[in-house]
Amino acid sequence: MATSAYDPNNIFAKILRGEMPSHKLYEDADTFAFMDIMPRGDGHCLVLPKKPSRNILDVEHDSLAAVMRTTQKLARAVMKAFSAGGVTVQQFNETAGGQVVFHLHVHIIPRFEGIALKPHTGQMEKPEILSANAEKIRAALETVG
Amino acid sequence: MATSAYDPNNIFAKILRGEMPSHKLYEDADTFAFMDIMPRGDGHCLVLPKKPSRNILDVEHDSLAAVMRTTQKLARAVMKAFSAGGVTVQQFNETAGGQVVFHLHVHIIPRFEGIALKPHTGQMEKPEILSANAEKIRAALETVG
Repeated sequence: MATSAYDPNNIFAKILRGEMPSHKLYEDADTFAFMDIMPRGDGHCLVLPKKPSRNILDVEHDSLAAVMRTTQKLARAVMKAFSAGGVTVQQFNETAGGQVVFHLHVHIIPRFEGIALKPHTGQMEKPEILSANAEKIRAALETVG
Repeated sequence: MATSAYDPNNIFAKILRGEMPSHKLYEDADTFAFMDIMPRGDGHCLVLPKKPSRNILDVEHDSLAAVMRTTQKLARAVMKAFSAGGVTVQQFNETAGGQVVFHLHVHIIPRFEGIALKPHTGQMEKPEILSANAEKIRAALETVG
């Protein structure tokens, strides 16, 4: 297995510990969801397990199941919040697999007919746009299962 | 919600019913895994729930959890089978989200440093290559958790 150990100083671990800010969308006992600050489309958000895991190769079953329940909830919410045509879900493992932050996370990206994903440029979205989109998603979360 | 009803005549439902052939990798009470015949990289495979669901927007929690357990198993197997550097997991919902077959499925693609995903051209891989890769993955599945 090409994986390494979990590094508790990764940026998502810091967000979970409240040591770094985030545009929070949702939280329950096992998961935490927030806006991706380098979105590949409007409303691009992320779901993490609270329990440390590097990626899908080492995550425990219950933790992964909880992440996917929250992923479904967010997928339904972004469909509604943005009147999206669809949702793309991505999850990257290890550097070769596209992973940049080494705490398991699932990407949820609302999609629209004929609009491609933006490339991952590393450019940060304006905070006011992230805040406005987060507010839309939180409002939609109130109404979806 | 932009989703439509489940169509029991989609091609993956036919594979599950044994009405269409597939390069089968794994099966348990709740899930079925097989080779993607239009791979975006060597060893690209798919996991389905046996229970009908269109995509992540309508799937039941238990069915999704089972799919992800099998996804983890396959991710570990393809890492080993191809000495991969990583794994990319993708799951598409509705046409705008990239979905082509309307039975929930998760893509598992072994990845290698510096090698991009092939575009989705609709071109079929040679059956003998799919068979050889399937054999490698089945062998690796014997040894992973």
